[in-house]
Amino acid sequence: MNKNNLKKIVKKIFLKHGLKNSHAEISSNYIIQAELMGAPTHGLARLKMYCDRIKKKLINSKPQIKIKKISQSISYIDANNSIGFVAADIGIKKAIFNAKKTGIGLVAVKNSGHYGLSSFYAEQAVKKNLTVFCFTNAPPAIAPYGAKKKLFGTNPICFGAPTATRIPFILDTSVSMINRGKIRVAAREGKKIPAGVALDKFGEPTEDAKKALEGVQLPIASFRGSGLAWMVDILSGVFTGGNHAGKVKDPFDDFSGPQNIGHLFIVMKSNLFVGSSYNKRIKENIRTIKKLPKVKGVKEILFPGQNKYKKYKSNLKKNIKIPKKILEDLKSLNSH
Amino acid sequence: MNKNNLKKIVKKIFLKHGLKNSHAEISSNYIIQAELMGAPTHGLARLKMYCDRIKKKLINSKPQIKIKKISQSISYIDANNSIGFVAADIGIKKAIFNAKKTGIGLVAVKNSGHYGLSSFYAEQAVKKNLTVFCFTNAPPAIAPYGAKKKLFGTNPICFGAPTATRIPFILDTSVSMINRGKIRVAAREGKKIPAGVALDKFGEPTEDAKKALEGVQLPIASFRGSGLAWMVDILSGVFTGGNHAGKVKDPFDDFSGPQNIGHLFIVMKSNLFVGSSYNKRIKENIRTIKKLPKVKGVKEILFPGQNKYKKYKSNLKKNIKIPKKILEDLKSLNSH
Repeated sequence: MNKNNLKKIVKKIFLKHGLKNSHAEISSNYIIQAELMGAPTHGLARLKMYCDRIKKKLINSKPQIKIKKISQSISYIDANNSIGFVAADIGIKKAIFNAKKTGIGLVAVKNSGHYGLSSFYAEQAVKKNLTVFCFTNAPPAIAPYGAKKKLFGTNPICFGAPTATRIPFILDTSVSMINRGKIRVAAREGKKIPAGVALDKFGEPTEDAKKALEGVQLPIASFRGSGLAWMVDILSGVFTGGNHAGKVKDPFDDFSGPQNIGHLFIVMKSNLFVGSSYNKRIKENIRTIKKLPKVKGVKEILFPGQNKYKKYKSNLKKNIKIPKKILEDLKSLNSH
Repeated sequence: MNKNNLKKIVKKIFLKHGLKNSHAEISSNYIIQAELMGAPTHGLARLKMYCDRIKKKLINSKPQIKIKKISQSISYIDANNSIGFVAADIGIKKAIFNAKKTGIGLVAVKNSGHYGLSSFYAEQAVKKNLTVFCFTNAPPAIAPYGAKKKLFGTNPICFGAPTATRIPFILDTSVSMINRGKIRVAAREGKKIPAGVALDKFGEPTEDAKKALEGVQLPIASFRGSGLAWMVDILSGVFTGGNHAGKVKDPFDDFSGPQNIGHLFIVMKSNLFVGSSYNKRIKENIRTIKKLPKVKGVKEILFPGQNKYKKYKSNLKKNIKIPKKILEDLKSLNSH
C-alpha cells in the first residue's frame, strides 16, 4: 500500500480510538517509519496492541503530560501513561533543546510505554549535529546471568553521532542475541528461530519461536550482556522513576495495568570539545575504517545505521507490503 | 609483599623517573589498587612500560595540564601527555564536582595515556552517590565487523551506580571476548587462551596467546560488539580530541610517539529524578534479581562489581603476590 495512504489509515485508527490529533499524527508517523526502516516488528504489527491498550485505558488517550524543568540542561517528564511515541517524542525534543542551549541535555521520562525504535529519537538529535544516547527498558525477556528465569527486557543500547554526511551513525542494539519482535514474527508465521538464542520454559535450548516466547532469551556474551541489560534497567527504570526489575508489563499479553516504562535521553553537542574540526575527525574515522582489508564476501564495511538508511531510502520509493493478518487488523480497527 | 611497602617502592620508582610527588602518589596508588582488585594485568605488570615511556619522554613527567571550563557542567582537559592515571584522576574529580553542583558533569580529556582500570574512576563517583559512565579507547585489538585487520581497542564500557550499600554496582566490560591484558599474561606465562576469542595474523582461529597478540581479537556478539567498540572510539577519541581510528599506540610495543588517548566521563546525581527514593528503588531492584531461581551450580546472582569488591576486601588482608619476572623489574627500576 502507498505509504501516505497507509499513514492516513493508521492516523484515522488512532483518532477513532480517542487520541488527539497531534498524538495520532506523531504515532502514525513513527509506525510508518518503522515499516520504511525495514523493522516491521515495530510497525503495523503493534497497531492492534496499542489500540487494545487504549480501549482498556492502559494507554491514556488524553494524558496530562507534565514537563518539569530541573535546570537549563535537565528536564523530567511525567507522561501520565501516554502512548510511548508521544512521551518519547516530547522527551527527545526537550533534550535536543537543552543540549542546543547548554551543550548537554538530560531528560528522563516516566509513566510512558513502548516507544517503537530508539533510532527514531536518536536520529532527530543526530540531524541537529548532536551526539545522543537513548535508553529504554522492556518487558522480561532475558535471564540475568546465573538465573533461569527471565527478568531483563531486551533493553536496547542506542547511540547516535553525526557523520558529516546525510547518513547518521546510529547503533541501536538490543543486548539479547535476537530481537524479541523477530521471535514474535517467527511465531506468528510458524517459522523457526536460529539455534543458541533462546531457551524454552524448562531451560532447554529451542528453535521453536512459540516455545522461546514462553521461555528465556539469551543475552549477548553471557555475563557481559547481562550486565549491560542490568545497566539499562537502572538507567531507564530505577533512575527515571519508571518500572524496573521485571515489572514492565508485556504490552501484548498483560493487560493488568499500564506499562510505566521509563526512558532516558542524554544529548551532547558534537562540537563541544573539538569545535568545527568534528566533521573532519568523524569523516577521517569512518574513512579509515572503511579502507581496512575486508573478509571474504564483504563488499563494504558499514557503520551502524548505514544499512538501515539504505533500506529506508529504497523503501521510500516502494509501496509497503502488508501481511494478510495485519490487513485484517487494519480493517477491523478502522471499522471499530 | 605487604601492600603498603609495595606502594612505597612503586612510588619511589615513579619519583626516580621524574614524576612529581603528587603524580607519583596517584599513580602508585592506582597500580596497587589494580593488584588488590585482582586485575594484575593493570597493575605492576605495566610499571616497567610506564617507566620506559617516561624515560623516552612519551609520557610527560612534568606536564602542564590545562583545565578549560566550558560551563558549570562541562570541562575540557588537555593532559599534555601526563601519565594516564593523573589525567583521568583530575578528569573524574572535575566531573564529580560539576555533577554535585549542577546535577550533571561532563568532562573530556585529551592527550592522555592508558589510565588503568575504568572502575578506579567510576568507583569514586559512585561513592559520592553519583551514576557514572567512563569511556576510553585503546590500541588496536579488535577487527571491525567485516574487516580482517584489527583497529578498535578493547574499548571498555564502564558504568557505575550506587546500590545503597557499601558495594558499588560497577560494570566494566571490554567489548572483546577476552581482556587483552589476559592474553598478554598468558603469553608471558606460556599458557593457552580459550577457543573462539582470537584469530592469528592470517585470520585463522588460535589458542596460542602470542599468535593472538599478533593477530586480531574477536568482539562480543559480532556486529553488535563491533558497533559498541566503534561507539567508544567516537566518544573517547573523535569527540574528545584524542587519537582514534586505530591511531592509539600500543604502550608496550610502539615508542614512536605519545598515545594521546582520550577519556570521557559523564556523571549524574543518582537522585536527580526520583529524589530520596533512589536508595529504596535500587535496593528493590537488586533484591528482586537476587531472588530469581538460579541455574545449577550458582549460589548467588551477583551484580557487576560485586565479585571484584569481595576479592578486593579479601586481598586487603593479604600480601600481594609478585611473579618473579616482575620482582626483577621492580629491582631493576628501583636501582635505575
